[in-house]
Order: sequence, then structure tokens, then C-alpha cells
Amino acid sequence: MSRPRQLHFGVSAGGSGLHRAAWRRPDSDIEGFPGVESLQRLAQIAESGRFDTFFLADGVALDTGTLAYAPPFGTLEPLVVLSAISQVTDRIGLIGTASTTFSQPYTLARQLSTLDHVSRGRAGWNIVTSSAGADNYGDEPLPDHLTRYRRAAEFAEVVTGLWSGWDPDAVAADRATGRFADPARVHELDHRGEFFRVRGPLNVPRSPQGRPVLVQAGSSSDGQAVGAKVADAIFTAQSESRPARDFYAAIKAQAAAYGRDPDHLLILPGLVPVVGDSETAAWEIQEELDSLIDVDHGRRVLGVQLGGADLTGLDLDAPIPEELLPHPDLIEGRRSRYAIYRELAVERRWSLRRLISRELSGNGHWHVVGAPEQVADALITRFEERGADGFNVIPPFSPRSLELFVEHVIPILQRRGHFRTEYEGTTLRDHFDLPAIPGLRVGAEGLVDV
Amino acid sequence: MSRPRQLHFGVSAGGSGLHRAAWRRPDSDIEGFPGVESLQRLAQIAESGRFDTFFLADGVALDTGTLAYAPPFGTLEPLVVLSAISQVTDRIGLIGTASTTFSQPYTLARQLSTLDHVSRGRAGWNIVTSSAGADNYGDEPLPDHLTRYRRAAEFAEVVTGLWSGWDPDAVAADRATGRFADPARVHELDHRGEFFRVRGPLNVPRSPQGRPVLVQAGSSSDGQAVGAKVADAIFTAQSESRPARDFYAAIKAQAAAYGRDPDHLLILPGLVPVVGDSETAAWEIQEELDSLIDVDHGRRVLGVQLGGADLTGLDLDAPIPEELLPHPDLIEGRRSRYAIYRELAVERRWSLRRLISRELSGNGHWHVVGAPEQVADALITRFEERGADGFNVIPPFSPRSLELFVEHVIPILQRRGHFRTEYEGTTLRDHFDLPAIPGLRVGAEGLVDV
Repeated sequence: MSRPRQLHFGVSAGGSGLHRAAWRRPDSDIEGFPGVESLQRLAQIAESGRFDTFFLADGVALDTGTLAYAPPFGTLEPLVVLSAISQVTDRIGLIGTASTTFSQPYTLARQLSTLDHVSRGRAGWNIVTSSAGADNYGDEPLPDHLTRYRRAAEFAEVVTGLWSGWDPDAVAADRATGRFADPARVHELDHRGEFFRVRGPLNVPRSPQGRPVLVQAGSSSDGQAVGAKVADAIFTAQSESRPARDFYAAIKAQAAAYGRDPDHLLILPGLVPVVGDSETAAWEIQEELDSLIDVDHGRRVLGVQLGGADLTGLDLDAPIPEELLPHPDLIEGRRSRYAIYRELAVERRWSLRRLISRELSGNGHWHVVGAPEQVADALITRFEERGADGFNVIPPFSPRSLELFVEHVIPILQRRGHFRTEYEGTTLRDHFDLPAIPGLRVGAEGLVDV
Repeated sequence: MSRPRQLHFGVSAGGSGLHRAAWRRPDSDIEGFPGVESLQRLAQIAESGRFDTFFLADGVALDTGTLAYAPPFGTLEPLVVLSAISQVTDRIGLIGTASTTFSQPYTLARQLSTLDHVSRGRAGWNIVTSSAGADNYGDEPLPDHLTRYRRAAEFAEVVTGLWSGWDPDAVAADRATGRFADPARVHELDHRGEFFRVRGPLNVPRSPQGRPVLVQAGSSSDGQAVGAKVADAIFTAQSESRPARDFYAAIKAQAAAYGRDPDHLLILPGLVPVVGDSETAAWEIQEELDSLIDVDHGRRVLGVQLGGADLTGLDLDAPIPEELLPHPDLIEGRRSRYAIYRELAVERRWSLRRLISRELSGNGHWHVVGAPEQVADALITRFEERGADGFNVIPPFSPRSLELFVEHVIPILQRRGHFRTEYEGTTLRDHFDLPAIPGLRVGAEGLVDV
């Protein structure tokens, strides 16, 4: 069922938008905070644009230090929210973030499989490790980076193993004979690893997609290895063409080295689009947003990205002193994001003010400001030069900036034949053009046994 | 807002009904297994009958030994399912079971609070400990009964503490000044107990009900103590009038001893109604169901209830030998249910066959078979003699037996003034006639600060 290569789009939803001052716009949805209905509306807008996925990032700790200035990142729990969104949408994939650092694989396997049942085959899991929140889960310190990723890899192995425990034909449900299921076709996993012992079988039957789609989002070398091995898609922050192409090529090569078809691993960098009637109009929108930034807030948020650096009192119009920015290998969490900022600060000598604006408006993602044709051209170039298989759109202000993208940019991409005008299938695996999970065959009547 | 004492009704949903042969009826929903849409339909039927709640039991292990004969107990994960159900209902409360034995309080507090946001104030948590599934969560043996309940009590304390962390007026969301929230009104919990260390604050803001409703469902003395101290409602299995009244009085007295208003703790025993046009017709329905039982399946299921007793080869028409049934204090899990069966077997000398029929059709709950007026009379008597504040209806076969109850029994109870004809409020706390959580006041415009 492989199709000609086309763009894929997701929307990364959250609060009033990625820009930390977005909630202050008159058209923000801040009255509805924490915003279940706003998220539902956003998913519907994305679905009207034939997006592949709706994505929720997450975290397991509250940063009270930035609460004075902006809605917190990661509030409502993604899997519960996505279930509600599944009921007001029909086709769009639903990808939730859940941490491997503080969860148990049996519980998470159940919840994700349930979401796949509830959504009729639209569930996905963004596999992450946590770099904050350890003190909400006991008194052990956060495991180190490498240990977290070893745990993540084993966690994913357990979860996918549990999902595979029910053969497609395990359930007979034969009223006449009273035979409900064949226990011999429901298998124990009996996993015994470094971090987990899990007997199984899962108490949820095989889900519509065979298993939910797997996404990986950490771009450190440890994260890349997990992603290249198990993921169906990779979320990443790549703002420049050359690093994006290098990253793309490296991941596809790693996947091939694991014996995988590289086409079955989509690279989807984040995209922060600011679309105006003209380039000037787009920049006016951006400048209006930036004018709403509180500088103290900016120092704090950027400091968190810079490994907890204290930026208080530093000159806004000078570069950050290099001694405040240790080598990335010495940083525990969000290492790949840190490296991007460190390069801008140390190698390219960006001013603190410019780094704050970049962080609060783009969070390290590709920030494209322009007229619809300009934005479409940029995306097609990046796609054709193999810097991306598509994009995870992160609306700078919500929901309006996503509406502008869907109304003005998507039709251009459709006219040029780079994006679907109708959904080809019903499941997230269909949208990503992934092969069916072994043991299942998709027929005209839905999933059938092989 | 206290109202005259009236009945409360919940529906306990699961599979094709409580009777283990219910899936073999021609009108069962077995084609839809594992049945998201069936659950949604059941919730809508209950809401059309003005029920207080829709309830999902749960477990964290698959019993492959009974899978040949009937759909497993507890498949889809309750919180994810309830979120989907919240989108196809408007008023009915949504109570999910989640285990304190294998979960982390920070995660569960987030998910339940999210469900309260998603459902606009209809979430409830059935606090349980797990008696199976330890080998899906590591290689430690199951903690003993008392330890599990100590953990459950501390778990509930942490979760309710996290829910109370955001003052009602913490969020300002003032566009003009750029002030989003007051961090001084969002409080760390800093819990340090026997089982948990949790810093907080929760990263989900205060939910519509102030906090989700708490339900407790274990009737052992350890369970009762937790319920009387923290719960808003208690689910229990009480089939006989005298024990039901004794249980009711004991729990209300325990609640009072904790300094609580006993009216704010509802006792809701399970009820398995088989309603026919006449008593004879009702019994015909029951007998038809029993005729579908597989006896091997019956031995297995009853054996599980009897602490894992092996009933293979025993004479169906004789009582179970007493030496197979140790004293309840020696039993680890589901102790209160075991004691009921042991009494029937040892003291009342029921035959194995009769015990199997009882287990497969009623699971130890109050099994009422009759014409609508008879069923209504029985419920009113039990209510007026203070054996119950209402009932958790467990449909023997689904959805039809719930429809029969709603169509024929509920109207009688409404005519006699014992049950609401319209919802008085919008939240589960409203339906249960519970006072608002301190710090919140319910006004005509919704929740407002005090």
C-alpha cells in the first residue's frame, strides 16, 4: 500500500500556543484554561486540513517559577484528553506523550491500547524520558541520561511485547458452543530485563492497529538510537537546512542498519509558522507577539533550557558569558535542545535578548515567518532536499495561527500535489503509510485475520 | 443544599453483563468486544434513567483460565474509557477504578483531575488495592492485606493533598498586566510518608468539583476503615437485610467517629436485578441464563472466589468439604467476598451447584428477581430500613437488563417520590448531595471563588 512520497503534518497542541506571550492576545482561549474545549477545537481544525496527527507533549512537574507569566507547559494528562478528543474527531491520529522514567509498562500498555480501541485505530505514543519531576515520584535522584534511555528502550520493548500477546484470531465469541476465546492464542510475555519483570499477558485484546504507533522525540545520540530502532516517527527540533538534512540522513541510515525500511520511519521536525497576507504582515504579527514578552520571564525560561543557568542581571544586549555554558555532555536533561542554544550563544554570539525572543517564540524549532506562498515554498524545499518527511506544526498562538496555516498554506501544498486532499485510510498507520502489523490484514471490511 | 433523603443509583458496567453466560444471549453486544460503544450506550441508558453514576470496575491481570468460557473481567483501562464516555453524556457521574497497589499517586492524581476537567465535574475514583497482578509489576510478591490498605490510605491522602494544591483564585490570566497566576497560591505538598515521597504541586489546576469524588469498595475491616475515613461513597456486596443494616450502621458510626457527617458517606450495595413482566417471567429469564453456564467454568470461577480452592471433581450436588475453606483471616485477597461464600458453604451447607449458580449470576451481590413492583418494593424496604442509601446496579445481561430496570422500575420509584425525575445539578457531587469542597462555592454561573 506504499504511495508516492508526500508531506505529513501533525499539530502539537498546548495551551494558548507555543509563544509564551500568546495567551495575552485578544483572540487567545485563555478563559478556558486548562482548555479541554480549546484542544478539541484545535484537533478539529487540524482534521479539516487533513493532518495526520494531533500531538500532546507532556511533563510531570510544575515549574512554579514561570507560572506568574504564562500558562504552564503540560497540565492535563494526554491520554485522558486524547480519549475525549477521539469522540469529536473521526480520522486524525492521536499521539500522547508518556514518560518511561516514572511509569510502569503494564499500565501504560493498557492505557495506550485502550486509546487505540476507543479511537478505532488512531492512537500513538510519544516515548520520552523525564528530565524533571523525580521528587514527585519518591526520593531517588533522577537516573542519569544513559540509564534513562536504557530504561526507555526496555520499556518500549515490554509495551510492544504486551501488545503482541493476543493472536488476531484469539477471540471466537461463539454463542452456540459457548467458546469465548482460545487461551492458547493469548501469550504470556514473561519479560525479565534490567529494569522490568512483566509476566503478562495484557488484559486488553489486540487493538485495531495491531499496536499503537510509536514516536520518539529526544534527539540526543541515546534518544536517536532508541528512535531508529523502534519508532515509526521521530519528532525533532531542526531549524537549519544543513543540520536537518544531516539528522535526516543519519536517522535513516541508523534505521537501515537495524534492518528496517527507512521509509517506515518518518522524520517530522517541529515547525512554528507565522503566516500573514504578506511577509511584512507576518512579521508584524510576530513583533506584536514579542512586544508582549516579559523579560524576567524570558531570562527564567531560557535559563531552564540552558541547563539551569542563572541569567539574572546579565546584559540583554551582550552574549552570555561562555563559562555559564558547559559542554553538552555535562548536561543531564534535554541535551539536544541545549546544544542548539549553546552554539547560538557561544559560536554565533547571539545577544541574550535575541536568544530570549527565539526561545519564547520558537523553543528551538524551525520558525517560518512569511506569506503563504513563501511558507509553502520553504516547506517543499526542506521536504525535497530530505530534511524532513513532514512537519509537526506548533502553533505560535492558538487556535488562530493554525487556522491561518490550514486556510492558506495547506491548499497550496495540495494544489502542488505534495499533500493529501482526502484521508486515504482510517488509522494513523494508514496516514503514515506504514505496513500493517504482522498477523493482521486490512481488508475492505476492516481488519481480518491472516 | 441538603435535600430530603432519596435513593441513589449507579450502574456498574462491564462486558456483556455480570452473568458469566450473558454474552451467549442473542441480544448481547459480544460482536463489539471489548466494547467501547456498548459502554457508551449503557451510560446513555443510565443517564436517561437519571442515574447518579456510571462505574467501571477493573483489574490488572488477565485470568486466562476462564477466557475459554467468558469475556475477561476488566479489559479496557477505565480512565481512558470514561473520558470517551464523558463526550457522549452530559450529567451522569463517571467513576473509575484505579489500584493503589501498582500506581503512583502523582500520575493518578493528574489523570483523575484531568477526567474531572474533561467531564466538567463528573469524575470519581474507586480506591482499590490489587489482589492479583503482582507479576505484571516486578518480581516482588504481593504485599500483605494490611500493608496494601496502609498504602491505599496514604495513597489517597497524597492524591487529595495534590488536588488541594491550587487555591481557587490562583489563576488570574490578566491579559493587560501579563500576570498569569500567583505562584504563592499554588502550594507544594511535600509529603513524606511510609510509602511515598511527593513534592508537588500537581501540574493540573484545581478541577471543577474541587476534587473528584472518592469511592471505596473493599468491605474487609481494613477497607472499611479507609472508606469511613476518606470516601464519599462505599460500594459493597450485601445480599441479606440484617447484614446490610449492620454494615450500614457500622460504617456510618465509624464515619461519625472520624468527625464526619454520616450523611456525606453514601452506602451503595450492588444490585443484580432480573426484571420480568411477572415474577414467573423474571425467573424464566434467570433460568434461561443459568442454562447457558458451562459447569467447568463455574468450578474455576467459584474456586477463585474461594481463595484459589481447587473444585475439580467435587460432587456438584453436595456441599464443599469444610477443610478446603480456611478461616477468612487466612485469605489474602477479596476477603469480605470470601467470607460470604464460606458462610453459605459451611454454615448453610449450600451445594456446589447452587454456589456456582450464585457466583456466576450474582457474584455475591443482592440478586433480585421479580416483577417491577416487587423489585421496587424490595429496594424501598432496604432503603427505608437503612440497609442502603441507594444501589450500584450490576446488569446481569447488558444492555437489555438495564433498559428493563430503567423502563419499568425507575418510574415506580420516581412516582413514589424516592428518586429524582430530573438532575438537580451538573456535577457528581451535586448528584450525591455532597457539600462543596472548601474554597469553592457553586453559584448560578458555575464555580466561583469564596
